[in-house]
Amino acid sequence: MSDRSAAGPATRVVAADELRRFVTAVLEHAYVLRPDAEFVARVLVEADLRGVDSHGVTRLPGYLEMIERGLLRTQPDIRVVTDAGACALMDGDLGFGMLVARDGMAQAIDRAKRHGLGMVVARQAVHTGLVGYYTMTAADQGCIGIAMNNGPTIVPAFGGVTPIYATNPISAAFPAHHEEPVVLDMATSMVAAGKLRLAAKKGARIPTDWGTDANGKPTDDPVEVISNGFLQWAGGHKGYGLATVIELMTGVLSGGTFGFDSPALKHFGRDSLVQSATFIAIDIERFMPLEAYKSRVDRLVRDIHASKPAAGVKRVYAPGEPEFEHRRERMARGIPLSGAVFEELAVVGSRTGQRLSEPRPAGG
Amino acid sequence: MSDRSAAGPATRVVAADELRRFVTAVLEHAYVLRPDAEFVARVLVEADLRGVDSHGVTRLPGYLEMIERGLLRTQPDIRVVTDAGACALMDGDLGFGMLVARDGMAQAIDRAKRHGLGMVVARQAVHTGLVGYYTMTAADQGCIGIAMNNGPTIVPAFGGVTPIYATNPISAAFPAHHEEPVVLDMATSMVAAGKLRLAAKKGARIPTDWGTDANGKPTDDPVEVISNGFLQWAGGHKGYGLATVIELMTGVLSGGTFGFDSPALKHFGRDSLVQSATFIAIDIERFMPLEAYKSRVDRLVRDIHASKPAAGVKRVYAPGEPEFEHRRERMARGIPLSGAVFEELAVVGSRTGQRLSEPRPAGG
Repeated sequence: MSDRSAAGPATRVVAADELRRFVTAVLEHAYVLRPDAEFVARVLVEADLRGVDSHGVTRLPGYLEMIERGLLRTQPDIRVVTDAGACALMDGDLGFGMLVARDGMAQAIDRAKRHGLGMVVARQAVHTGLVGYYTMTAADQGCIGIAMNNGPTIVPAFGGVTPIYATNPISAAFPAHHEEPVVLDMATSMVAAGKLRLAAKKGARIPTDWGTDANGKPTDDPVEVISNGFLQWAGGHKGYGLATVIELMTGVLSGGTFGFDSPALKHFGRDSLVQSATFIAIDIERFMPLEAYKSRVDRLVRDIHASKPAAGVKRVYAPGEPEFEHRRERMARGIPLSGAVFEELAVVGSRTGQRLSEPRPAGG
Repeated sequence: MSDRSAAGPATRVVAADELRRFVTAVLEHAYVLRPDAEFVARVLVEADLRGVDSHGVTRLPGYLEMIERGLLRTQPDIRVVTDAGACALMDGDLGFGMLVARDGMAQAIDRAKRHGLGMVVARQAVHTGLVGYYTMTAADQGCIGIAMNNGPTIVPAFGGVTPIYATNPISAAFPAHHEEPVVLDMATSMVAAGKLRLAAKKGARIPTDWGTDANGKPTDDPVEVISNGFLQWAGGHKGYGLATVIELMTGVLSGGTFGFDSPALKHFGRDSLVQSATFIAIDIERFMPLEAYKSRVDRLVRDIHASKPAAGVKRVYAPGEPEFEHRRERMARGIPLSGAVFEELAVVGSRTGQRLSEPRPAGG
């Protein structure tokens, strides 16, 4: 079972259902109510299915550590603070951000069905996870869904070297008819920190627009970025501008933490991971029949597919399509977990009488 | 007066008021109604004041050419097609995009005051110009303003070499108290085509993430990008993802042109410049007292200013601040027009009995 190599423990492949069962059981043991535990498990495993491993089950040990330290409440009082027409302000009471996001997007969709548009701004949420999960929920219900969040500081303002924002992600999802929905789900930083760690492990150089050294100068050395420097914004000042917009639409508007009063993001699990998040739903039917819109989305996707590929490119994708490809493959073949992640989960499971069953070596 | 050098006609400096008067008079002569002509002039000169010269009075000859060719209607029937709660769909009837945008954002703000949010989607608009103009109008009225548009195709999908979108700009504006409003106003391409032409003139190399050659490979040769290649997206696939979102929020949702059925953007003025545009207003008072929000925006701007600058950086700016600095300087000293632009305007003016008075050489 413990197929180790010199490079560390080997990758294990686990079925999505089994991973959901395991995460749900571990969270229930930590006094999370069963339906809530199931939902958190669903969002985490969805990230793994879509290939966004950084937001998947690898986060579970960190959540448990936050629960132990009192930084994450297992039975929060998530509530609407003010309710005014198409808008609502929510307080997440330091509960799982997934639960806050589930309620927030549901409220936004409900308002969209009544007014045409709905917008919910939530504060005091602890890590909403895969932000695209909630926008896809809106798309499933005939809406355009938009979601974004701020969080603990890790990236400096463009031209500065003092961390001021999180990587401030944004997602938007659009329903299609025959094609998969179009789903943008991105951090406004050029890459996630995980990509730097991967390059560092391989001893590889990185493109100079990924990060800077301690003085804010672009560097191709991933170790320098990780140890002393900073992530850089996607498109330089443009990504920074978007991140600022997201800060102003979330933490500034929610009455929550923002800018320098957000905690620093140093150690996931041991530091507070408090965020504000904003959810917008747009009822497509107010503009044209839903089926007509979906057919037009199909046509745009077909235009994208009909594009002549650049030299060396096999296929031109719509945003979100590679993630749907990942999902199909991982639903069929299982989710590969790195040996390190598998062992962390095993430790967490052993404390709570749970184990991940039927793992098999990659390719087995 | 015609202070020429070997490099071409010299820069002239014209006062903003005089430039507005001139543009208004020329447009009136082309049968644009006076209040409409004044508004178009105000938006164009605002772009010049803010240093966004590419969207300023340099566009006037192109507009006149479109009017002559019947591609731009001087007295359009801009109308609301469907009106449903917080949402409205408008048809611009191939009128000036500035007039469509003025009405669109006004309608969005009106709906925001009634419902908390407002969203207007408009099709058949001819060049909305400086998209940040309209979002700043919303911020002046206590709203968060968001605006975006699609248009004729010039940039390929990421990984492709068939132009599919315009540079699809987006703007968002947020009111502050003591500070200037925070204003994001950006194309989703890495740079505007004008920056490439400038580099080509100087014989300079460009960063490899600005554009590609004919095969879609990154190049540092601006001439190759202009002659055979393509602009690249800000942050690569991330800017492409945002541009796709904007296409889906504008042309796809408006019932207007999108993707491959948009005209190609080859020659400004001689080809149709039809766009769809979307305007969103959010009533801040639904979430917190407006003054409280403005003070929080001030605090974020102060956090940005308190950031330690990177090596070689003098000052860390909030989005939109450099443009406000430009505006103060150009209001005080006048707007510098390149000799080429000045001469084009002189030609246009001479046909209509107008001349730009009191020009003086730069620095004079």
